[in-house]
Amino acid sequence: MTGFESMWAALEPIGRHARTGGYRRYAWTGEDANLREWFAAEAQARGMELTLDRAGNQWAWWGDPDAEPGVVTGSHLDSVPDGGAFDGPLGVVSALAAVDALRGQGFVPSRPIGVVNFGDEEGARFGVACAGSRILTGALAADRAAGLRDGDGVTMAEAVRAAGLDPERLGRDEEALRRVSSFVELHVEQGRALVDLGRAVAVGSSIWPHGRWRLDLNGEANHAGTTRLADRDDPMLRLAEVVLAARREAGAHDCVATVGKVRVEPNGVNAIPSAVSAWLDARGPRERAVRAVAAAVGAAGGGTITEESFTADTAFDAALVTRLAAILDGAPVLGTGAGHDAGILAAAGVPAAMLFVRNPTGVSHSPAEYAEPQDCLAGVSALTAALVELTG
Amino acid sequence: MTGFESMWAALEPIGRHARTGGYRRYAWTGEDANLREWFAAEAQARGMELTLDRAGNQWAWWGDPDAEPGVVTGSHLDSVPDGGAFDGPLGVVSALAAVDALRGQGFVPSRPIGVVNFGDEEGARFGVACAGSRILTGALAADRAAGLRDGDGVTMAEAVRAAGLDPERLGRDEEALRRVSSFVELHVEQGRALVDLGRAVAVGSSIWPHGRWRLDLNGEANHAGTTRLADRDDPMLRLAEVVLAARREAGAHDCVATVGKVRVEPNGVNAIPSAVSAWLDARGPRERAVRAVAAAVGAAGGGTITEESFTADTAFDAALVTRLAAILDGAPVLGTGAGHDAGILAAAGVPAAMLFVRNPTGVSHSPAEYAEPQDCLAGVSALTAALVELTG
Repeated sequence: MTGFESMWAALEPIGRHARTGGYRRYAWTGEDANLREWFAAEAQARGMELTLDRAGNQWAWWGDPDAEPGVVTGSHLDSVPDGGAFDGPLGVVSALAAVDALRGQGFVPSRPIGVVNFGDEEGARFGVACAGSRILTGALAADRAAGLRDGDGVTMAEAVRAAGLDPERLGRDEEALRRVSSFVELHVEQGRALVDLGRAVAVGSSIWPHGRWRLDLNGEANHAGTTRLADRDDPMLRLAEVVLAARREAGAHDCVATVGKVRVEPNGVNAIPSAVSAWLDARGPRERAVRAVAAAVGAAGGGTITEESFTADTAFDAALVTRLAAILDGAPVLGTGAGHDAGILAAAGVPAAMLFVRNPTGVSHSPAEYAEPQDCLAGVSALTAALVELTG
Repeated sequence: MTGFESMWAALEPIGRHARTGGYRRYAWTGEDANLREWFAAEAQARGMELTLDRAGNQWAWWGDPDAEPGVVTGSHLDSVPDGGAFDGPLGVVSALAAVDALRGQGFVPSRPIGVVNFGDEEGARFGVACAGSRILTGALAADRAAGLRDGDGVTMAEAVRAAGLDPERLGRDEEALRRVSSFVELHVEQGRALVDLGRAVAVGSSIWPHGRWRLDLNGEANHAGTTRLADRDDPMLRLAEVVLAARREAGAHDCVATVGKVRVEPNGVNAIPSAVSAWLDARGPRERAVRAVAAAVGAAGGGTITEESFTADTAFDAALVTRLAAILDGAPVLGTGAGHDAGILAAAGVPAAMLFVRNPTGVSHSPAEYAEPQDCLAGVSALTAALVELTG
C-alpha cells in the first residue's frame, strides 16, 4: 500500500455506523478522540511537532513557525450525521501525503509547512459549522461557544472538559494565527462541475454567503383521536408550509435551501404536537437573495425565526488563486455553496485558497460520497505542487 | 385530604417532566415500576389480593374471582409523551375510591369486585396502543409483542425481563379473562361534549374505528449547500405533502387524521435527508372512510405505507350501557374517537362500558389536560352507583 492508502485504511473504521455505512464523527466524542490520536501519531511518525491551539485544533509542523510563519494545508476529520469518508479526511490525508512526497523528492522548504486538523467543522453536535476555526479567529466568541448545547443538553464546555481539555482556554489564538502565512485546503468537490469539465482538480475562488436559521413553530398539544379538525392548532401543518416555502423561495431567488433537521414535541403517534422546530439552511451567490429566502420561509411558518449563523460571501486570495490555477495546468476556478475552514481563515485576513477533487456523482454528506483513487492521487500531486510553489 | 386526594397527590410527581410539566410514564421503565409499586401498595392497604396476568396487567380483588367471576373497573397509569395527569390515572384512582365508598357504606357485594391497572395502554414506547389488554385477550400475538422495539432498539421482551417479569409468559390469559364478568372503565373525556351538554358524567357507547400507519419516504442524502434543486431527491418535501394530505383527506371523509410523530435520517442541518418516516393516526365513525384517508395519504407520500394497528368499530354492551345511563339520572351516551382497554375487552366478548368525566377544555394528551375536583368526585359517585347496580 502507498502511504495514502494505509492512512485511508486506518481511518476507514473510525465512527462508521454499522447499519447506514455512514460516518458519525462528532466533536469531542470518543470517535473524535480516536481521530485525534491518529493525527497525533501521524505527526509523530514524521517528526513533526504537534501543537494544540486555544480552540482545540491540532497542528503538525515541519519547521519552526515561531521563527517564520508557515504555509499550512489540511482540513477536518469530523463528519455530518451519516456522512461520507471524503469530506474532511481527504484534505488531511492528502496534506500528510504531500509532505511525504516532498520529503521523498528531497525537497527543502524555504519556510515551515504545517498540517492542520480543524475540530468540529460540520457543527453536527453543537449546531455551529466551522466551530474550530471560528473560535480560533474569534468569529465565534468563546463564551457563546462554551455555552452551545448538543441534543442531550451537554454544553461544549462540558464536552471539551470531558475530552481532557480546559474549556477556560477556548478563545481567539493570536499565537496560532501568527504562525500561518497562507492556507490551502484540499477538499472533495460537492457538486459535479469537474465531471462536466472533464478535469480532476479545480481551484476554489469563493464561498457563497450561507446561513442557518431555526424556526420555532408553536401549537397546542391535544389528543389525536378526539380533537375536531376545527379545534386544532397543529404545528406540523406549519412545518409542511415551511418545507414547501423553502423549495419555492430558493427556486425564485436562485439559491438552494434545505430543511434537513426537525424536532417534534412530544413526537407521539396519537398526540397533536405542542411544538415543532425546523432548521433552514440557505445559500446562494448573492447575500440579499439568501436573506430574502430566509425571511420568506420564516413568514410561511408564522412562528419565530432565529439566525443561528451567517457567513457573508468569502472571496479567496485573488493572487493565490491565480497562482495556483497557473501552476496546475490552467485548472478551472470554481465558487462553492459549501462552507469551509478556509473561508473562515480568509475572512480573518489569512491569504487562503482551496483545491477541489472531482466527485463522480456530486453526492456529498452521504455514505455514497466518493472520489476515484486516481483523482485522489491527482489531488495529492496538485497539493504537492502548490506547496513547492509557495515554499520553494 | 380525602382518600381520592391523597392517592392523587401520591401519583402526581411520578414521571413528571420538569421542563414541560407533562408526564413521561412509559411501559416497563423505572417510572412504570414506581406506578406499579404504588398500585400494589394500595391493594395491600385494602386487603385486596393482587394478581398479575400473563400480559403483566395488575388486578386487585375484593372477593375470590375464581369462585365466581367479578365486576371489574379500573384503567391504566402509563401516559403518552408529555401527557396529562388524568388520562388513565383518573380511572384507577376512581376505582379504588369507589371501593372505599362501598366499604364506608357497609356495602356487601354479591360477587367479587376487581380493580385493574392495564399496562402500556398508550403504546408510547413500543408503538402498539392497548398492548396490555391486547396481549391479555390475544388480539396482539405474544411473539409479535415480544419482538416490538422501542426507539432505542430495545425489544418488549428485553424490557419485560429488565422489569423482573418472564417474557416467555406473555400471551392470552384464559384464567384472568374467566374472572371478569363485566368491565366498566372510567376515563376523563377527551372532547367537549359534556361541556356543551352541561353534565358531569356520560356513558360511553362505542369506540370509533381507528388505526396507525407508518409511511416510509425515501430520498437521497446529499449536501445542502452544493446540490442543485433540480438534482435533489428530498424526502422532506414528501413529508410536507403527507401532512397536508392528512388534513385535507380527513376533512373530506368526516374523520380526524394526525401526523404527530416523525423520524428524519440523518437529521442534520446541512444534509438533505436520506429518509423520513411519518406516522399517521386516523379515526372516524365509519371504517371505510378511515381506510380511504390512510390510502390517500399513503399515495400522497409516494413511499411505502405499513399498517401498524387497526381496530374496527367497537360497540359497548348495549344492555349494560342502557342500564348505566338509567341509574345515572339519564346520563348522556357518547361515542369516542379514543381507543381504550374497555374497547379491547368488548371486542373479545367481555360485556364492557365506559364512564366519561367532563373535561372543561377538551384538551387531552397534554399537560393542560384537566377535570374539576367536583366532576372527579361526581365520577367516583357514578362509578360507585354502577358497582352497586352490578353487584348489589
